[in-house]
Amino acid sequence: MSADAVAYARENSARFLEELKDLLRIPSVSTLPEHKRDVEAAAQWVADELRRIGMKHVEVIHGDGHPLVYADWLHAEGKPTVLCYAHYDVQPPDPLDEWVSPPFEPTERNGNLYARGAVDDKGQLYIEVKALESLLKSHGGKLPLNVRVLFEGEEEVGGEQIAKFVREHPERLEADFALVCDTELFAPELPTLCVGLRGMIYTELEVRGAKSDLHSGVYGGAAPNPFVALAQIIAGLKDRDGKILIPGFYDDVQVPSADELKAWRSLPFDEEEYRKSEMGAPELVGEKDYSVLERTWARPTLDVHGIAGGFTGAGAKTVIPAKATAKISMRLVPHMTPETAFRQYREYVEKIRPAGVTVGVRLIHSGEPIVVGTDNPYIGAATRALKTVWGKDTVFIRSGGSIPIVGDFEKHLKIPSVMMGFGLPDDGLHAPNEKFHIANFHRGIESVIRFFEEAGSQ
Amino acid sequence: MSADAVAYARENSARFLEELKDLLRIPSVSTLPEHKRDVEAAAQWVADELRRIGMKHVEVIHGDGHPLVYADWLHAEGKPTVLCYAHYDVQPPDPLDEWVSPPFEPTERNGNLYARGAVDDKGQLYIEVKALESLLKSHGGKLPLNVRVLFEGEEEVGGEQIAKFVREHPERLEADFALVCDTELFAPELPTLCVGLRGMIYTELEVRGAKSDLHSGVYGGAAPNPFVALAQIIAGLKDRDGKILIPGFYDDVQVPSADELKAWRSLPFDEEEYRKSEMGAPELVGEKDYSVLERTWARPTLDVHGIAGGFTGAGAKTVIPAKATAKISMRLVPHMTPETAFRQYREYVEKIRPAGVTVGVRLIHSGEPIVVGTDNPYIGAATRALKTVWGKDTVFIRSGGSIPIVGDFEKHLKIPSVMMGFGLPDDGLHAPNEKFHIANFHRGIESVIRFFEEAGSQ
Repeated sequence: MSADAVAYARENSARFLEELKDLLRIPSVSTLPEHKRDVEAAAQWVADELRRIGMKHVEVIHGDGHPLVYADWLHAEGKPTVLCYAHYDVQPPDPLDEWVSPPFEPTERNGNLYARGAVDDKGQLYIEVKALESLLKSHGGKLPLNVRVLFEGEEEVGGEQIAKFVREHPERLEADFALVCDTELFAPELPTLCVGLRGMIYTELEVRGAKSDLHSGVYGGAAPNPFVALAQIIAGLKDRDGKILIPGFYDDVQVPSADELKAWRSLPFDEEEYRKSEMGAPELVGEKDYSVLERTWARPTLDVHGIAGGFTGAGAKTVIPAKATAKISMRLVPHMTPETAFRQYREYVEKIRPAGVTVGVRLIHSGEPIVVGTDNPYIGAATRALKTVWGKDTVFIRSGGSIPIVGDFEKHLKIPSVMMGFGLPDDGLHAPNEKFHIANFHRGIESVIRFFEEAGSQ
Repeated sequence: MSADAVAYARENSARFLEELKDLLRIPSVSTLPEHKRDVEAAAQWVADELRRIGMKHVEVIHGDGHPLVYADWLHAEGKPTVLCYAHYDVQPPDPLDEWVSPPFEPTERNGNLYARGAVDDKGQLYIEVKALESLLKSHGGKLPLNVRVLFEGEEEVGGEQIAKFVREHPERLEADFALVCDTELFAPELPTLCVGLRGMIYTELEVRGAKSDLHSGVYGGAAPNPFVALAQIIAGLKDRDGKILIPGFYDDVQVPSADELKAWRSLPFDEEEYRKSEMGAPELVGEKDYSVLERTWARPTLDVHGIAGGFTGAGAKTVIPAKATAKISMRLVPHMTPETAFRQYREYVEKIRPAGVTVGVRLIHSGEPIVVGTDNPYIGAATRALKTVWGKDTVFIRSGGSIPIVGDFEKHLKIPSVMMGFGLPDDGLHAPNEKFHIANFHRGIESVIRFFEEAGSQ
């Protein structure tokens, strides 16, 4: 059976890529209100395609935010059911002037496809769609297992709609496992399954001084400066060795098992190469007693994403601004909880607040950290499928990023997620010149075809 | 002679105010390149008016930046010569949404005129112009002393053009003293001369981490975060008690004389009122061992005006930005120099640079601190004029702000400046809802009329 579907995928590979480019041309930036209609257009485009390939009950589900796209095919009696997840929304493309080719004009260069969303996550969403098409079209409209599809358009803004839908309608999503295509290979040519994710809290910290902007000549020396106060708070949250100074923050951190740590040490990882070629930074930073993989996979961190307020135009303005606002997030690891972390953070910020200012913290979104067992049968099926396509044993890794929906699937649907992704570490997701290695797009489709056949024959 | 000119000013006061509104409608924001033509338009408007009232040799002088406006009247043989200074450029009006009436639509409310530039400095520039008109029109086109006028359009961006002109053409500016109208009364109804100014260095500090933006999930814990590093640097520059931590920074600070300190203590100053009504801050900040007036007049300070880079839009973007840039300035007092302060700052920033980032500092502009002697005969003439108009003795204060041109006049023209200003402490210069008390506009004109007559009869 696989042979037919894989042959179909290979015969149609050029068309599949052109279709992906059409999807990438829709600037479905979920974080920016001015792109609301583009996000809707992307949802409709995906729904039309699911209908065209032969999926049933295709529906664009509207709620308060960006829509969900649902579809199913449930005629494989006695077979397990997979819930296919991906997201069709993308990050903002700024800074625009750093893109070699425009973010929403997909361009092929050096075997890669460059566009915002190429790998995160439209390319990987389309891997699922094209695997389903290949199976349906090569076998008279039938699939080797039952399939539900649930794609979202709010992954980059916290995924409220899908979280609500999963919580409120578990009966519409009954399944045995989920396939989540939103991760990456540990290294080129190395089939990878992600079995752990960091959680997060994403917050906004506002610092207010005087009631309005003041002249720094007239008032400097007596007026509180919200930017200086904010800097003092941030410097108080994390020390120069990367240690987070919030009391109790590390209390619930679970240390990875000795086996896990040993496996990570055997992964092909060149710290100097990572620093120089992938990151391009003068030095790596972070907690000195932990390896880079431990720091990014199994340790909580704190980052500042931007600071708003005041004067940032060309030239000079001698103003003491009335307020400053910072976007600050923390990555969490098992068994930390977003609730406890946010409470500890909020209380500590109030405690270290400098004189002359008031502070306010707001939670923008959060996600639970998660770990999936490698002894799960669907992880086993995925491992066999990847071995066939890639000719190598799968490596089990964690990811420093957050996919909150994996926690929701576990909590409300009681199902594990197989996180099978085909990105590469240097794909630049969330950055200018995001790309997807075109060969991985095609091998991804073959991998999902074989995974569904393996899972259907268990 | 005064009586005629003052009578003329009173008869024409309504027209004077309407003309000022016309000038305020020109958005001559010198810091923003998109307003270049507006700055030029304001210069031409002022030149036309100087021509109309009977000044000679009126010229709009173009150089690399925004133009200077020059005029003179030099027929008062045997009389001293005054150099009249003011600036016709204004600060940017942002944040726009905090203005009650639009910044470039001058609006009268409660005896005040609200507009960007109302008090800083178009209103005070126009005091000089209307005093000259009143004297010329009431005395057959003659003035009681020789007058040169030199107005600039770059005060808010560092005043490069005027500094260059003063340095290169002292022969065109020969004078006995300058009148600088760009300061304020210490309190309503209290005639005030400013005899000291802080200097400043205005800088941009850039912090760079990785070569491009990174995903904070994937890289958080190993990648340098330029915003966190910037916060650590800023927190290292100034402690929570307002003390600047740059080594050697205070070495050249001159302590005010015991007499000066005593006079300052006798000024009507209510610290609680200043904090609550004027500033609207929860607490005053700064060096605990110094009074508020000492801290803002005679102590150096450091302020952050804005921080650019990263993501500051609505919602969330999980990015570790490649770079962050802060606008940071320091106010200087006698006998500090901008050169030494900038060198100490640059060296210290490099020294406290956190791991993983590179830093760069750039000087945007600077100005020397200055003190003028109260025993100067023109200060005496100004004091007598103010007594006549306001019915009170003048108070001598310093200002925490910088007027670099006063230093240039002293250095290149060897003349003292009489800093006579009519703003009020709550006029909100550089902030939304900047205003000028309309009565002070008219009394300012009368004060300058009488000052020129006093100075001409010495």
